[in-house]
Amino acid sequence: MISEKIYLYEDRQDVYLTTYIWDNSRELGTGPNMKRPAILICPGGGYISCSDRESEPVALRFAAMGYNAFVLRYSTYSKGMPFGMSPDLTVTVQPETNHPVPIREIGMAILMMREKAKKWRIDTERIALCGFSAGAHNAALYATSWHRPVITEYFDTDVENLRPAAVILGYPVTDFKFMRGFKHKDPMIDALMKNMDAAFLGTDSPSEELLTETSPARLVDENTPPMFIWATANDELVPVNNSLLMAQALSEHDIPYTLHIFEDGFHGLSVATQASSCSRSEISNEIGSWVKMAEDWLYKRFSLPLAEMTPTEANILKKRGE
Amino acid sequence: MISEKIYLYEDRQDVYLTTYIWDNSRELGTGPNMKRPAILICPGGGYISCSDRESEPVALRFAAMGYNAFVLRYSTYSKGMPFGMSPDLTVTVQPETNHPVPIREIGMAILMMREKAKKWRIDTERIALCGFSAGAHNAALYATSWHRPVITEYFDTDVENLRPAAVILGYPVTDFKFMRGFKHKDPMIDALMKNMDAAFLGTDSPSEELLTETSPARLVDENTPPMFIWATANDELVPVNNSLLMAQALSEHDIPYTLHIFEDGFHGLSVATQASSCSRSEISNEIGSWVKMAEDWLYKRFSLPLAEMTPTEANILKKRGE
Repeated sequence: MISEKIYLYEDRQDVYLTTYIWDNSRELGTGPNMKRPAILICPGGGYISCSDRESEPVALRFAAMGYNAFVLRYSTYSKGMPFGMSPDLTVTVQPETNHPVPIREIGMAILMMREKAKKWRIDTERIALCGFSAGAHNAALYATSWHRPVITEYFDTDVENLRPAAVILGYPVTDFKFMRGFKHKDPMIDALMKNMDAAFLGTDSPSEELLTETSPARLVDENTPPMFIWATANDELVPVNNSLLMAQALSEHDIPYTLHIFEDGFHGLSVATQASSCSRSEISNEIGSWVKMAEDWLYKRFSLPLAEMTPTEANILKKRGE
Repeated sequence: MISEKIYLYEDRQDVYLTTYIWDNSRELGTGPNMKRPAILICPGGGYISCSDRESEPVALRFAAMGYNAFVLRYSTYSKGMPFGMSPDLTVTVQPETNHPVPIREIGMAILMMREKAKKWRIDTERIALCGFSAGAHNAALYATSWHRPVITEYFDTDVENLRPAAVILGYPVTDFKFMRGFKHKDPMIDALMKNMDAAFLGTDSPSEELLTETSPARLVDENTPPMFIWATANDELVPVNNSLLMAQALSEHDIPYTLHIFEDGFHGLSVATQASSCSRSEISNEIGSWVKMAEDWLYKRFSLPLAEMTPTEANILKKRGE
């Protein structure tokens, strides 16, 4: 396994890709230099930070499926420093981390994966995004914006090089307009979510236009890739309606998608095993089953290019004259 | 993830540990420097080579469970060179790879893990062995020999430092005496298996004593750790009776064990997913289920030291005065 950090900017330590790349083998799949599909993971953290809980525990699950995995620590308000999620936090403008920087960093990561595709043995036609919470917002916003000027005019490349093949979203934020009208049961959470908006948007009073252009559920079109979405119905931080609105938009545009809503589970459960948890109360076989469901969903699009039979089986049939 | 190769001998390139060690995190488990249980994996390959198919694909599954994983490429006849499994192979004596070298290399690996336990954040009381086929023989032989002179007189250490906490065996060879009396349906396989014996034992005509001291099923005693064993009933290479004989011996000595025999599947399926396969015919949900069963079995002994509740939950109860 090649596991290393690749910094996206020369002068910043907070934005980097962590790689989980399979060793080359004569014995696996089609043998030497088999290209593997890749999963680019965006952890959550309210655009304040990037959570470890949605990083390595997730990357290892996708790597174990046979894919090359990458975790992207994109720009967030705290710039990689430890940072509490306090409701009385004062969020100021930070153009180097505000929108559209985080989606452009997904574009940078995809282009880097294309550039290093030979060394990393990546099937560049099959790069999926996977995100959680704010990271799912980032992934969904990229997936609905990759062909728009905000991305295409920023990169000097063929637009098709920027297209993601599939997207997996866990408890995503998808609609800022809906979010601004929503009142959480706990008013402290309203304050927290407002911080997230400001950290990402760089303003406490965004225009209607800005809210629309940062709401993936309002940007779905025929260029949106297939999506797998999961959430919990009683998420008290990010209302499940974000997932439902996204599903509605995908339905309207005939984009293939899968949606799994689990009845009970708090926000941010990641893969819901001991590997992603700091307490046993975060472990749930029921919710953790999304990983297997996502594996089956991915397999339809991302299966490795294996032969149908082993060489031995093929030889036996040949000897029999079949 | 720290993924690197550590060579066990200064002057050999064929014997090494590959590490899959979790990054440190303030957010996971009990936080900075949480020690994780470790799994030491011995791939199969008939003591002729070490198979990639039972290396990285397996390590990533155990790593994804939250454990630190290690693959041990122990000494084999081919010394890491590409090598066909031909029945007319001439196997000659090679003291640097013959028994007891491979079990001693497991001891070396365990002591290295203890020595580097702080850097690698390993819970040294919880190191499990996992092996497949000949690698399962190596793991089982170590697990039934770690307290015997062949190991203890070789290492200058407290014998307890050599004790493994648990063992997971896939389609193991456990009884050379049984194997020598067994006639395979395909006589070519008898010849292949004889090669394996010779590669490991260094002789075509081993003494009864040598066969006994290299047969884990004949060495089980109260110092044998708990075992998880799986195999397929119609394995044409390594007869399933090896697993049954091992289970009998464990029963006789009241050693806790789990045994899963699947009715149908050829030898060497590893984790039986696309990640471990070179053809689709090797993929089996049924057989691949052993990984989840082993995860549940390990969890009883190897669960991470998590808190019962998240800090938020604990705070809520505290505020309520509970």
